[in-house]
Amino acid sequence: MDETRHDPLNEAGASRRSAVAPFIAMDVKSAANALEAAGRRVLHLEIGEPGARTPERVRDAARAALEDERIGYTEALGWRPLRERIARHYGEHYGVDVPAGRVAITTGSSAGFNLAFLAAFDHGDRVAIASPGYPAYRNILAALGLHVVELPTAARDRHVITPEMLERAHESAPLAGVLVASPGNPTGTLMAPEALAALTETCDRLGIRFISDEIYHRLVYEGREETALAFSDRAIVINSFSKYYCMTGWRIGWTVLPQELVRPVERIAQSLYISAPDLSQRAALAAFEATDELEAIKAGYAANRRLLLDRLPAMGFDDFFPVDGAFYVYASTRRFTNDSAAFARAMLEEAGVAATPGLDFDRSRGDGHIRFSFAGSEAEVAEAVQRLEDWLKR
Amino acid sequence: MDETRHDPLNEAGASRRSAVAPFIAMDVKSAANALEAAGRRVLHLEIGEPGARTPERVRDAARAALEDERIGYTEALGWRPLRERIARHYGEHYGVDVPAGRVAITTGSSAGFNLAFLAAFDHGDRVAIASPGYPAYRNILAALGLHVVELPTAARDRHVITPEMLERAHESAPLAGVLVASPGNPTGTLMAPEALAALTETCDRLGIRFISDEIYHRLVYEGREETALAFSDRAIVINSFSKYYCMTGWRIGWTVLPQELVRPVERIAQSLYISAPDLSQRAALAAFEATDELEAIKAGYAANRRLLLDRLPAMGFDDFFPVDGAFYVYASTRRFTNDSAAFARAMLEEAGVAATPGLDFDRSRGDGHIRFSFAGSEAEVAEAVQRLEDWLKR
Repeated sequence: MDETRHDPLNEAGASRRSAVAPFIAMDVKSAANALEAAGRRVLHLEIGEPGARTPERVRDAARAALEDERIGYTEALGWRPLRERIARHYGEHYGVDVPAGRVAITTGSSAGFNLAFLAAFDHGDRVAIASPGYPAYRNILAALGLHVVELPTAARDRHVITPEMLERAHESAPLAGVLVASPGNPTGTLMAPEALAALTETCDRLGIRFISDEIYHRLVYEGREETALAFSDRAIVINSFSKYYCMTGWRIGWTVLPQELVRPVERIAQSLYISAPDLSQRAALAAFEATDELEAIKAGYAANRRLLLDRLPAMGFDDFFPVDGAFYVYASTRRFTNDSAAFARAMLEEAGVAATPGLDFDRSRGDGHIRFSFAGSEAEVAEAVQRLEDWLKR
Repeated sequence: MDETRHDPLNEAGASRRSAVAPFIAMDVKSAANALEAAGRRVLHLEIGEPGARTPERVRDAARAALEDERIGYTEALGWRPLRERIARHYGEHYGVDVPAGRVAITTGSSAGFNLAFLAAFDHGDRVAIASPGYPAYRNILAALGLHVVELPTAARDRHVITPEMLERAHESAPLAGVLVASPGNPTGTLMAPEALAALTETCDRLGIRFISDEIYHRLVYEGREETALAFSDRAIVINSFSKYYCMTGWRIGWTVLPQELVRPVERIAQSLYISAPDLSQRAALAAFEATDELEAIKAGYAANRRLLLDRLPAMGFDDFFPVDGAFYVYASTRRFTNDSAAFARAMLEEAGVAATPGLDFDRSRGDGHIRFSFAGSEAEVAEAVQRLEDWLKR
């Protein structure tokens, strides 16, 4: 027997690759839920999930589908009318021409990442991501046997991966891909169009697959987002109805693929997902017509952002990026502590405010940071700010 | 540069591991849809999907949730009331005690397989499956870098993997796992309780993880199904609301895990899925109360099965297993052809009956078989039988 063989029924029983880090935000949420179950009122600034309900128009579309349609498998790449509507969105919103045949409907952006990684990369390939960044990137890449190359970014450089950083990482050993989010989680940074153009150009030149996480598009407060598709038809774009469109629990998203990856993604999706949820696909079609409801929700985030940017510095949180987009403030806790996980626990226990310690996003420097999500209501975020001020004064 | 490195932007662009076989059933469905779009009436016996709508009670639960609930992320392991209801189902249906903490809600059985394989096996591990079998097993295993060991079964042996077959495969090189479906797709075979007991016992003794696909449970016409949990608490059980409960498009299923795999699966699921669709979870809770509607649908399958078992042999289809459960007949086409894919194409073109060629299920012997799904209505299956008889007489 091969000595290095994983013993599937040993004491631990789990595979080596299942030893990914837990998503601390989810564990904080569980702790917050436990406090609530014990009668405490908790303000939830820990999860990147809109506090608003799914727009009425979207729920109406779901109601109609429940009445009139069979809820069955769709084709693996998705329900054609939704693929076509998303293609049209690229014309309307970015002025970019995208054929519906390159749009694949996915079970949330989670499935988009999984399919993109499987279709584009082989076991052992090196893929670069920014640190701090969304922890699921690292975990999905690791679970699929890919080598994660973390590129540390800093607030003074707008938390952005530059062509130079990429070339340096590629020189030491070739990169197969790079994944960039703009606006980014947890930093809220937005890449300027020229920075995005330069990075995709570098990737195409070096033979590095560019994956663009555009899930926070349409949630931009300063500047304007551009899609990677404007600069490269080799980029893979990942998007979702979860954030701007307030459809987290529907698990519905999409990816725009370079032509040569359409059939590989279709083949993998047929086996790994069969199709995205049918009802969610039918409901999502209405999301593009709910702009009035959605812009009102966004105005609430903008007010929350203003409040946090005004009040957090005076409390002692600093070193955060000015939050161009998304709905997070990723702030330094160094004035209070070098153990932001303990700080977050105390804050939850004593002030009833839940937030996510930075180790979720940056395993080497995250112990000095914390992420506040301002996707909740204005009342909730205002109360959280007040509680934080009171708590820190004590 | 490493010579064996996959070039991510080469002409083909796709990874080696994305070169999985397409799901021919899905391609047949597309061809059938194209014929229908051209005005032809096609009878769909190609996809393993109930023709009946989701039960009214389940749709009612979805309507109520759309009214009253926020549709958001649930915990990664699923909505607690559904996990508890499923645990109770094991007591009610099998007389087996399963704690809710070992139940994980998944985005269809597809996610169950993916999570089970990732949590239990490492890259390069050998996992045995029966051939013929559900093609997604092979494709998901291959995409995750696992070595698929296909064990050929035959109708005369009830298409079942025996302890002897497993021991032989394990001797040549150690197996990390084996995946067994009972009732099986495409054969409809049901393992006798003592056969299942013997196989799980062999696995526990040899240190092979047993994965039991129980998605066709409650769709048994001869005999009675037993869960692997009755014989081993190290087995992983995969199930879903898609088949008996008529909820394909909702993408909702579950897995029962050995205790030591609960936290690893939770960690992977947090990153790979976040959670199963919330609305589907709330709706599925009502599925256990829809037994009257569901048993009426099953009675239709039983009539379809009777009709096919009566009429297919006289037409010249043979060598099929007597179909204890599920809703498929996997029949030999050798009397007509050794190219069942061409046969299926002609049958679709000329008779307007769609069915799936055997190569989906058995890459070495499938060219002499075809799978008929009888999950449609009685009228549909009766018309298909008539058309087949007329077509074969010509």
